Amino acid sequence: MMSTTTTDLTRGDFTLPGEAGYEQLTLRLAKKWGADTIRDSDGTQLSPEIVQAGYDIYSTVCLVRSVQPWARENRDKLQQNFLMSYPVVAEKATTAITLLKGYFTEQFVVNFKDNPKRWWQVFDRATGKEVPARKWSANEKKGIVTVTDTEPGHSYTVNFLVFRIWEEISMYNHLTNDWGDREHLAAVDPMHPETQQVLLAFLEKWLREHPDTKVVRFTSMFYNFSWFWGADRATLRDVYSDWGDYEMTVSPRALKLFEKRYGYRLTSEDFVNGGLYNSTHNAPSRRYRDYMEFIHDFVIEFGRKCIDLVHQHEKKAYVFYDDHWIGVEPSSGRFGEFGFDGLIKCVFNAFEVRLCAHSKGVETHELRLHPYLFPTGLKGEPTFKDGGNPTLDAKNFWIDARRGIVRAPIDRIGLGGYLSLVEPFPDFQDYIEQLAKEFRLLKSFHASDRPWTAPFKVAVLTAWGDLRAWTCSGHFTPGVELYDVLESLAGLPLDVQFISFDDVVKAGVPRGVKVIVNCGRAGTAWSGGHYWSDPRVEATLTEWVRKGGALVGIGEPSALSQPGRNFRLAQVLGLDRDRGERIANGKYNYVAPAKNARGVEGVTEHFITADVAGALDFAKDVDGIFVLGGDTQVLAERAGEKSPKLATHAFGKGRSVYFSGFKVSHENTRLLHRAIVWAAAQESGWSVWSSSNVKTEATVFPKAGKLVVINNAGTDEETVVTLGDGKTTKRVKLEAHGIAILEV
Amino acid sequence: MMSTTTTDLTRGDFTLPGEAGYEQLTLRLAKKWGADTIRDSDGTQLSPEIVQAGYDIYSTVCLVRSVQPWARENRDKLQQNFLMSYPVVAEKATTAITLLKGYFTEQFVVNFKDNPKRWWQVFDRATGKEVPARKWSANEKKGIVTVTDTEPGHSYTVNFLVFRIWEEISMYNHLTNDWGDREHLAAVDPMHPETQQVLLAFLEKWLREHPDTKVVRFTSMFYNFSWFWGADRATLRDVYSDWGDYEMTVSPRALKLFEKRYGYRLTSEDFVNGGLYNSTHNAPSRRYRDYMEFIHDFVIEFGRKCIDLVHQHEKKAYVFYDDHWIGVEPSSGRFGEFGFDGLIKCVFNAFEVRLCAHSKGVETHELRLHPYLFPTGLKGEPTFKDGGNPTLDAKNFWIDARRGIVRAPIDRIGLGGYLSLVEPFPDFQDYIEQLAKEFRLLKSFHASDRPWTAPFKVAVLTAWGDLRAWTCSGHFTPGVELYDVLESLAGLPLDVQFISFDDVVKAGVPRGVKVIVNCGRAGTAWSGGHYWSDPRVEATLTEWVRKGGALVGIGEPSALSQPGRNFRLAQVLGLDRDRGERIANGKYNYVAPAKNARGVEGVTEHFITADVAGALDFAKDVDGIFVLGGDTQVLAERAGEKSPKLATHAFGKGRSVYFSGFKVSHENTRLLHRAIVWAAAQESGWSVWSSSNVKTEATVFPKAGKLVVINNAGTDEETVVTLGDGKTTKRVKLEAHGIAILEV
Repeated sequence: MMSTTTTDLTRGDFTLPGEAGYEQLTLRLAKKWGADTIRDSDGTQLSPEIVQAGYDIYSTVCLVRSVQPWARENRDKLQQNFLMSYPVVAEKATTAITLLKGYFTEQFVVNFKDNPKRWWQVFDRATGKEVPARKWSANEKKGIVTVTDTEPGHSYTVNFLVFRIWEEISMYNHLTNDWGDREHLAAVDPMHPETQQVLLAFLEKWLREHPDTKVVRFTSMFYNFSWFWGADRATLRDVYSDWGDYEMTVSPRALKLFEKRYGYRLTSEDFVNGGLYNSTHNAPSRRYRDYMEFIHDFVIEFGRKCIDLVHQHEKKAYVFYDDHWIGVEPSSGRFGEFGFDGLIKCVFNAFEVRLCAHSKGVETHELRLHPYLFPTGLKGEPTFKDGGNPTLDAKNFWIDARRGIVRAPIDRIGLGGYLSLVEPFPDFQDYIEQLAKEFRLLKSFHASDRPWTAPFKVAVLTAWGDLRAWTCSGHFTPGVELYDVLESLAGLPLDVQFISFDDVVKAGVPRGVKVIVNCGRAGTAWSGGHYWSDPRVEATLTEWVRKGGALVGIGEPSALSQPGRNFRLAQVLGLDRDRGERIANGKYNYVAPAKNARGVEGVTEHFITADVAGALDFAKDVDGIFVLGGDTQVLAERAGEKSPKLATHAFGKGRSVYFSGFKVSHENTRLLHRAIVWAAAQESGWSVWSSSNVKTEATVFPKAGKLVVINNAGTDEETVVTLGDGKTTKRVKLEAHGIAILEV
Repeated sequence: MMSTTTTDLTRGDFTLPGEAGYEQLTLRLAKKWGADTIRDSDGTQLSPEIVQAGYDIYSTVCLVRSVQPWARENRDKLQQNFLMSYPVVAEKATTAITLLKGYFTEQFVVNFKDNPKRWWQVFDRATGKEVPARKWSANEKKGIVTVTDTEPGHSYTVNFLVFRIWEEISMYNHLTNDWGDREHLAAVDPMHPETQQVLLAFLEKWLREHPDTKVVRFTSMFYNFSWFWGADRATLRDVYSDWGDYEMTVSPRALKLFEKRYGYRLTSEDFVNGGLYNSTHNAPSRRYRDYMEFIHDFVIEFGRKCIDLVHQHEKKAYVFYDDHWIGVEPSSGRFGEFGFDGLIKCVFNAFEVRLCAHSKGVETHELRLHPYLFPTGLKGEPTFKDGGNPTLDAKNFWIDARRGIVRAPIDRIGLGGYLSLVEPFPDFQDYIEQLAKEFRLLKSFHASDRPWTAPFKVAVLTAWGDLRAWTCSGHFTPGVELYDVLESLAGLPLDVQFISFDDVVKAGVPRGVKVIVNCGRAGTAWSGGHYWSDPRVEATLTEWVRKGGALVGIGEPSALSQPGRNFRLAQVLGLDRDRGERIANGKYNYVAPAKNARGVEGVTEHFITADVAGALDFAKDVDGIFVLGGDTQVLAERAGEKSPKLATHAFGKGRSVYFSGFKVSHENTRLLHRAIVWAAAQESGWSVWSSSNVKTEATVFPKAGKLVVINNAGTDEETVVTLGDGKTTKRVKLEAHGIAILEV
């Protein structure tokens, strides 16, 4: 049921991918879906018929791969990075290491031009020590480094600079789509003033040549996320791949400028890190954080020049929040300095909707929805072809994205890909029409209102803090608990913020925050890793909970091993983890969970478990948890093991809840929600604007007087929603993937 | 079938526990079982009727708890240890810590006599730093330490000295058997010269008062294994319990003598170690190893005086390898200096048989078999009472112990407990008669012969090396893989030795060793922990395998994390472990195991897996294993995960095999055996003296010309044994728990 509204739900805020050769279809669907903007996809040029139909035109440009002839002639201006050679075990006193062995030589060429002795490093990994430069030599012809005085049985590696001769996104598309002998595009490095001039000249020309374009969409700015390919794509294509790592920004020029600015010199090992590089998932070093700041500064500085040019041509500048987004940092406090008009995020999940909405300093937040109009999906499954069911796909993606859209304002939506593919799927065409109306309705609620949230704030504590709010490192990755937690949080009526350890040290826990979530495995940026070595973090948070704060710890919260202790907040959590060193230490024999009110074995009845209807499933959770004493209440434990899965602890005036892991599901989202509310000691307010069925969620827009009830499942559902008085209930029936709007 | 033999199988080498009041039974069973020795159990005094029946008499004495009135009068001569108080979170600038909170105050009394400021330490566990002595004070009356200038939110602990007022073995028996107001016995500390005098005087008197005693069995020497009890036995009885830790030997006098001898001062934290103490399972520090040496030296020195006294009285001195065995170290090269005549080990498992047999410097190796003649077993299950089946228990214990007895010479066996309990179990009486004959037969084979072993040596590499050969830390503990491995090895036709990392650094891999087994979790003494930080270990072993050696790595072999590498022998193993830091690093896509020749899914056909008949079960094994390249062959992987369970790798001229875990079973013992033989590149000799049925094992005594085939199962089994030519086979039928002797 869709309530009546005065908003025009049939038109606007929708970007449609035009397709040359399908002019009629393009215009028909633009009308049906209420599009106001038509974009050209990568490699397609819109025909005049479309361009002149009165729609805003939106064109993509990827600057760093736009100047191919110049790139071919200026190979020393191509982008670079450090690579670590695969380890070689010395057999004699002289050891030769083939630098690119194991790497994709269509992507990488060793940079012998910049003095290897200055920029490279050789390591003896058995001792962990650098080999002095006089003990090795580089041979350009053979592509090897020869190390002398090597110790037999020790492993040696070389950190070396490479130019990248094939830009990764075009490489991926080229090889995935078998583009044969089509040109390999290379990305130039704007760190060089010459490159900047060339790019600005290109952009100036391009802007002049695209008079009909209203919106220039950058894909994105200059540096792609890190993606190192292996020699054999069948067995190891992605040697290293991280959506947030700055590896691919490195060059001798950048390092020299860094040294000048920061007063100290970075080494290759600051980037290589034994082959782990600077994965966003691992707690970042201080030196690397400085380097990120340096690059962010540069990207803003030169990016601003490009955007100014766009504005001079009276066009708008949008940026795609992916691909070459490194250094753009839409969550940074400085993002506004770019002057972008819009930010576009392609989304699979609710947390990505929140990620997009979270960015300040930009007027328009636009989502690119899935499925893309491609014959197959990302895993090769059929979409717009025989065997595919794109309508069902669209519904399933939509119910995930919608949870985020209900909670946070999004300005526009759109699709990507080849529009012609939808022609044989009229039900898909109808569904997108309906979806677009649903979006416009939800947007209208946000226009002058904010959805109700519980009367306390929640902070997610990670090493990255707000810089990586509402994501970990790109799209959802199974096995990283925080993604699951974010996906749950993204649709809950909670006011969530993201804080870092540095924030805590600097200013304590922000005012209004009642619950801190710390979720992740030991050593990760999410749990915090070495950031817990600062005792001020432990002291501040311990004191804060004792005085009435609350901690929800998931996985290995506050983990940083020291003798006898693995969780720095063990005293707060009332438990710790045995990583194998406590075989001789006895474990407190806690009261085993029995059966909850719904007859679920192994689950203690509690406010938190009140909706638990089956065994808890946290996927691969943490084992070896032991409680410190009788005041830790274990609500559930691992099957067949005396290791809590879910436990609560009172600490001073505060509370904590521990989860041994997390996996997003309707049931677990509810469990997390209840845990947070319990930790905040706000159980009495639980029923306000609640929905009984865990597959459904209720959101109230108080000023508008609208209660939005969504069905997050692909089955028809019924639920009882409770109104703002916490008492009055209404029964609501929802179709599969459906929505209901109640006037309240 | 039992072959004919000229040995008298009916008499000798058997120790029977006599029981006063059951003289007739004692003498009847002594005859039936062929006992040559009758012992008094703890607390029972044999009647003259038994003593004078012509059997050797064997009496137990526990010196350190033998002088109770003196102990009560000399409380400062009781044994001591350090305890760590439970952490207290500071709320203000002054923090009081109740020292014994959480500990069993019938076991411990705080030692305020020796200056706390000299011996104790207070730690701020948030910073990891010691609190200066001027910032805390001890209050004897209140039993607290008050710390000043404490930081709110930091956790503080106190390491303090305690006297132990109740000796742990008597405490355990007292409380387990509800002995009510029977006296609490305390253990005196022979570190004091006065105590030594008192003990020697007691022993002298005792020896005079036991003219009929032929063998004095010490239980054991002076210091019990570490066992700290908690305040509430229902929830946490064993706060800390380790069979091999020297915690309970500490005293100010010992520490002063240590400092004098070693030239440096040990601190309380060397013992407390953040509450982990010095568990045998964790890689020991160098300082603690020095301290062990110091105590071993002392125990030998004073022990020798006691034994000399026994010899002066023309009695023999045996020592029980348990209880107060700390400092005795029967695997030490110095054990012979004690001058003991016999060593007695109670055994549940084959590895304990090997442990006993392994000890040099003693003439007689005696086993105490299970079940003990008690109404209930260790876990409270019925044995010699209604519902029990002691005969079946005895058979099941015997088939485990027998595997070890077949492989290594044992001189005597015996039982313990209350003989009267066997009266209602005539089948048990008959079975022990048969078992004793079986033992004597096997002993006769060892008399002038050694069982055949494969023509290469195997070394188990741990931090402890030979000092902890054939055990980890006491009886079998599930979850510590090395116990399982030892139990498998204990019955295999392999020449096994135990080496330490220090051995490897000092002298390389011993000559003749072809296979090294390194098994355990990261940080444990078994895997090696910090001992892997010496690059010589990595270099020596890597070179050794490259030149033709072999490594069998189990669990987390060679684990010591550094950036990008967790296993120091990753290059040798062809694999490493991702502990969560490699989310962004791609993993080599190895060829998945398919199906072996017996149709087992997920198991690659290979020499190693040739007897695998079902899915591999290694209990809680290690996940996150990734292979380094295509030359690592994965034979089995974890269910539903791309993480190898079993893999092989060729490295230079050598080989390696990796197991993700291990659990003793007939199938896995065979798998380990095959893996070792394959690693040694000795597949061609596999069939020599082999037995086809994995539940059976064959052992040949070449000189005696006897092939012993044992059935390790409780079911009738049939097997095909292959003789020494590797071709001729014989079919053998074995009863449940049975044995067959073939003339060959």
